[in-house]
Amino acid sequence: MKSGLKRQRRKDSGVKGSMEKKEQRSSEFITLAHGSGGKAAHELITRFFLPYFDNPILRTLDDQGVFKIESGRLALTTDTYVVDPIFFRGGDIGKLAICGTVNDLAVCGARPVYLSAGFVLEEGFSLEKLERILSSMKEASQEAKVTIITADTKVVERGACDEIFINTSGIGIVPSGVEISSKLVEAGDAVLVSGAIGEHGTAIISEREGISFETEVASDCAPLSEMVGAILADGLRPHAMRDPTRGGLATTLNEIAMASHVEIEIEEALVPIATAVKSACNLLGFDPLYVANEGKLVAFVPEREAHDTLTIMKQNKYGKNAAVIGRVVSKGEARVYMRTRIGGRRLVDMLVGEQFPRIC
Amino acid sequence: MKSGLKRQRRKDSGVKGSMEKKEQRSSEFITLAHGSGGKAAHELITRFFLPYFDNPILRTLDDQGVFKIESGRLALTTDTYVVDPIFFRGGDIGKLAICGTVNDLAVCGARPVYLSAGFVLEEGFSLEKLERILSSMKEASQEAKVTIITADTKVVERGACDEIFINTSGIGIVPSGVEISSKLVEAGDAVLVSGAIGEHGTAIISEREGISFETEVASDCAPLSEMVGAILADGLRPHAMRDPTRGGLATTLNEIAMASHVEIEIEEALVPIATAVKSACNLLGFDPLYVANEGKLVAFVPEREAHDTLTIMKQNKYGKNAAVIGRVVSKGEARVYMRTRIGGRRLVDMLVGEQFPRIC
Repeated sequence: MKSGLKRQRRKDSGVKGSMEKKEQRSSEFITLAHGSGGKAAHELITRFFLPYFDNPILRTLDDQGVFKIESGRLALTTDTYVVDPIFFRGGDIGKLAICGTVNDLAVCGARPVYLSAGFVLEEGFSLEKLERILSSMKEASQEAKVTIITADTKVVERGACDEIFINTSGIGIVPSGVEISSKLVEAGDAVLVSGAIGEHGTAIISEREGISFETEVASDCAPLSEMVGAILADGLRPHAMRDPTRGGLATTLNEIAMASHVEIEIEEALVPIATAVKSACNLLGFDPLYVANEGKLVAFVPEREAHDTLTIMKQNKYGKNAAVIGRVVSKGEARVYMRTRIGGRRLVDMLVGEQFPRIC
Repeated sequence: MKSGLKRQRRKDSGVKGSMEKKEQRSSEFITLAHGSGGKAAHELITRFFLPYFDNPILRTLDDQGVFKIESGRLALTTDTYVVDPIFFRGGDIGKLAICGTVNDLAVCGARPVYLSAGFVLEEGFSLEKLERILSSMKEASQEAKVTIITADTKVVERGACDEIFINTSGIGIVPSGVEISSKLVEAGDAVLVSGAIGEHGTAIISEREGISFETEVASDCAPLSEMVGAILADGLRPHAMRDPTRGGLATTLNEIAMASHVEIEIEEALVPIATAVKSACNLLGFDPLYVANEGKLVAFVPEREAHDTLTIMKQNKYGKNAAVIGRVVSKGEARVYMRTRIGGRRLVDMLVGEQFPRIC
């Protein structure tokens, strides 16, 4: 793991070395002037950001985006994306920055509407890479039907950050009557997952470890707002939903167990995991239960709604492999157990210590 | 300038060297496990973040904060703070992260209400420094009457960021009937500034250049929401307001001139600048007109409201040195001029090229 990180860092240094040679053609790279608030900063906004994100609110170029809203409940969420590498099979930091924040809104039942975007760029970062990232952000925003209404760009000197970090914060509208929280899980609830687990983390680590050509695992990075919208539109009311990112499914189940004080039992044989993910995790020495996802929904639903919720998940393009993987056994102790294939029952703990940094 | 930055980087390396020796006592420093989404991450949140930011919405520890809102207009803004050094005379990155975002809401007339906070922490960063920063964020939030309702923490490996970056995004409520935008400036408007300029940038650069003991300049970092609230509560209606941060007063005036297509004229003798700022800027070779502020308001107000607006600014503790510094001469050309003390008239352009990075 550590050696993989070091390899990555050496690779980056190589890239930066070649940038330095080209520095004269400064217009192709981010310079400190792009973060000064002066003419170059203005040019960066009007030449790069506006063409990709243009909309009437952002276009005012004021220091904030103003929008009208009906009375009700709103959700606010924030995430900074520092994924390494910034381009990976199945996505890039831009797509991730949109989908991750959209999903954090969707899991409380909110319809994601407006996003902010804050960029930290390293001096010398390629404008060509920036454009590829902005282009994926545009595409993911369109799919998730969200609008970036305010943005900020900072440039730090070479070596003060690693290429690009992106913060996206998001606002979503919570429909009237919808109450979804990790605190609201009940005994008897069915536990559903919207598809095979461990793909995002496996894709990232495979790239870092240089085994990406041996495996075909792509990140599952995707917006889940449409799937959640369809579940709610059908009148179904999950008690809790989460997207199991850092720490994977195991950590998410433990967090919900703690928040609702429940014992959860899942069945190993029911948890969908792609063969390629199993192989890569074997090779890397990871347990897929702890590996990050970026396009999966975990839902705790009343038992009587389990079948219908599963049907709707399966109708969505990101939910074809959805499955019921377990149930909430009882209120009281906060515990997660797994019935193994060989008939045993083992405790599934939270992730202890570091697994891998910069997975998202 | 460049040499100053290099000095700073050497200083940091020294600090990191001494951290490495102590690494065994890992609980005093940020480790990669703190960003894993597992147990250490959970502990970081419950032991450090919650005690400082505790409130009923954040306490749910869901991936988003949910709040009720009346119908109307909301403002959303975002800023990532990468200031170097992270502690400086008059503030630190935490105070700056609250005030900067509060001010970006206040300048459109919005009452700041809810904030999100996204942290990027470098492996090895001191938990003692983190606590000092969280403590200032708490203090500044209380003064500005805003609540942090959702947060995110990422940890990157040593060398992948410089100590700590903080993104804050904020939501404010725009009062009915208030329309303030850099596009709405009219010929005849008076130009007001709420106090002496150039203090934040001068304080930061003085620290970096190691001349902070020769000067007493402190950052003006402060929340302006109370001052703006008092202006609006009195029925006064500025056409445009801005907080002149990166690029300073000169850049802000140029941005407004461009947005409203107006010619602005300011008088050198009327622009308040502290003697210590003048001296430091002379020493450093900077023009205070281009030096960042973090607690100053520039307001374009109808001429008939200039006197009353000035009076209210002066009644606020951050506005004692407020002044009318010029006026909008005409619609048409986007230009900013300054009448000099010796009777000349010079064009005040936008900042060209880099002045200094990581000022906020």
